[in-house]
Amino acid sequence: MHDRLFIPGPVEVRPELLKAVASPQVGHRTQAYMDVHSATIPLLKKILYTEQEVLLFTCSATGVMEGSLRNLCQKKALLTVNGAFSKRWYQIAGFNGIPADKLEVPMGKAVMPEDLDKALATGQYDVFCAVFNETSTGVRAPLEKYSEVLKKYPDVMFCVDAVSAMAGDKIETDKLGLDVCLAGTQKCWGLPTGMCVTMISNKAMAKAATAKAPGYYVNFVDAKKYNDKHQTPHTPAIPILFGLHAQCNHIVNVEGLDNRWKRHLDMQKLTHQWVKEAGFELFPEKGYESVTLSCIKKPDGFDFKTLNGQLSKKHHCVISNGYGDIKEQTFRIAHMADTTVDEMKQLFKWIDAILAETHVSA
Amino acid sequence: MHDRLFIPGPVEVRPELLKAVASPQVGHRTQAYMDVHSATIPLLKKILYTEQEVLLFTCSATGVMEGSLRNLCQKKALLTVNGAFSKRWYQIAGFNGIPADKLEVPMGKAVMPEDLDKALATGQYDVFCAVFNETSTGVRAPLEKYSEVLKKYPDVMFCVDAVSAMAGDKIETDKLGLDVCLAGTQKCWGLPTGMCVTMISNKAMAKAATAKAPGYYVNFVDAKKYNDKHQTPHTPAIPILFGLHAQCNHIVNVEGLDNRWKRHLDMQKLTHQWVKEAGFELFPEKGYESVTLSCIKKPDGFDFKTLNGQLSKKHHCVISNGYGDIKEQTFRIAHMADTTVDEMKQLFKWIDAILAETHVSA
Repeated sequence: MHDRLFIPGPVEVRPELLKAVASPQVGHRTQAYMDVHSATIPLLKKILYTEQEVLLFTCSATGVMEGSLRNLCQKKALLTVNGAFSKRWYQIAGFNGIPADKLEVPMGKAVMPEDLDKALATGQYDVFCAVFNETSTGVRAPLEKYSEVLKKYPDVMFCVDAVSAMAGDKIETDKLGLDVCLAGTQKCWGLPTGMCVTMISNKAMAKAATAKAPGYYVNFVDAKKYNDKHQTPHTPAIPILFGLHAQCNHIVNVEGLDNRWKRHLDMQKLTHQWVKEAGFELFPEKGYESVTLSCIKKPDGFDFKTLNGQLSKKHHCVISNGYGDIKEQTFRIAHMADTTVDEMKQLFKWIDAILAETHVSA
Repeated sequence: MHDRLFIPGPVEVRPELLKAVASPQVGHRTQAYMDVHSATIPLLKKILYTEQEVLLFTCSATGVMEGSLRNLCQKKALLTVNGAFSKRWYQIAGFNGIPADKLEVPMGKAVMPEDLDKALATGQYDVFCAVFNETSTGVRAPLEKYSEVLKKYPDVMFCVDAVSAMAGDKIETDKLGLDVCLAGTQKCWGLPTGMCVTMISNKAMAKAATAKAPGYYVNFVDAKKYNDKHQTPHTPAIPILFGLHAQCNHIVNVEGLDNRWKRHLDMQKLTHQWVKEAGFELFPEKGYESVTLSCIKKPDGFDFKTLNGQLSKKHHCVISNGYGDIKEQTFRIAHMADTTVDEMKQLFKWIDAILAETHVSA
């Protein structure tokens, strides 16, 4: 029996989605492919609240984080840094010879909109990149406030890594004025790894068309050209598209968008309540807690390895250790994708029992 | 019932491999993942006859074609151009601001080693890229002769796109002195799309370490660092890895390498014989025919659409139209992956019957 995943990605994938993933292959230039592709994009647009482009790239989110900078940055990029994944986006600029500055705050904190405003007022930047839901710290950035600031700087591209939030935490991309919003399929989408769903604004598309060395594999202009004919420029991850099509249908037509956002908020509420009752503390600063995953401080002497080992052995499920620089100080529980409130309740009962038995309580 | 694919990728995937692809997800930083990853790499090394690196990238082959240039080219690249995919590699250089020249010959022809020698003798180039098996024309490049030439230029990196050949046509990468040899999983590997298997020499790895803007997503040095601990730097296509592991086991331990190469040669021989008997002609020049796919000239008035429509309707299988500039002049039949000689015989009987019935014979 496999371990059911309560880790912040990859997540548990429903058996019917795994079945869709394992459909026989079709040629990616055939009508059979185009039918699935063209049926999926409008559903993705609904889920992302956009009337602009939604494109599919066959790579992890990191590939499109890199692509966003290469397609859109012609002057200098400004990036929030408050955890492992936002730090990665900043590093990507360096690996591509793209000038970049960071707006850095300690892990667990969110970058404040005032600091963003101050930095953008210098006029040095043409791209701003923010990680919405820092998977390493469980910090949720104040996207709406960033959005207000960005309205003052219409020439600055607003790129958002929504990796562990998209399809779980409601993101109205057009209303927020996002130019890029990206996420891998293995988090809130509830699918296996292998594809990056990307919303791209018309403004970003126009700017990408003027790029000097945008790169070839993640090329926005090329991707749109093919998307218009219900294809991708390069061989797509066909199994993941099959799964994505089934999942989008489920999200829009079975569960319903509002129910999906509510379920995630309910799971967050339940988790916060358990954290408090069990005597733990959340790692993120108050008011900036992720809706889809909780990063929890390890009390002194807390034996995470034993807890997770027991969860696996007794109940065939696992939660996650901390990540990066705060690996030893934190652990993480995901409440995303197709997980239910009842499953979370069951998980917390199991954890409580193990903590009581092993005397490693908080 | 789905159409069985005799197209040059994606190919038909055996049901047991689709089942492996649909295994429940595991975290990509867990022992469960590392066990599969570490069991797969040594099998890949056997299949590619290498004792150097084999790395897995989650993207189509195009992503690693781009990555090879970005990681390895510091002066200027020289690329063979004799079809749609070799042309693409040349274009990729342009999209990345990398200086490049092409060694171009008409489609259907192979670039001659003498011309390669002459070009490299100028001392302008530090990277040479060749497409081994041009999927658009069915031309097989004389890799062994290129290899002889390259021995005179040890500072030139020898990069080979083996997309529609790797795991079907024997390629002894170390013996040939290849620095990069890459292929997507959806051709001769007999798996779905989504991953690029890449052999990288120690020499290429050392050079990549000195690159100024190698890029981040397809970064050879980073990929090796993680591969050494049985992981990938970025979230990998876990479903494809599961399939690849099962398939490598099959290739090495069930079918056997020599049997696999022989089966592909047998399918090629049978196809050439049928082409002749049916009154068709191959598109590639004599002596340079692909082992894994045949590109066939369309006789005047040949109605490919009807033929393929009938194959689909009557027998639930499809072959492929031509590609790119020679789309109207040619059609293609793949004989790769796990296809058997008997399946090819059956296909040819069906085609013969349709051609006789519809009076669109060669």
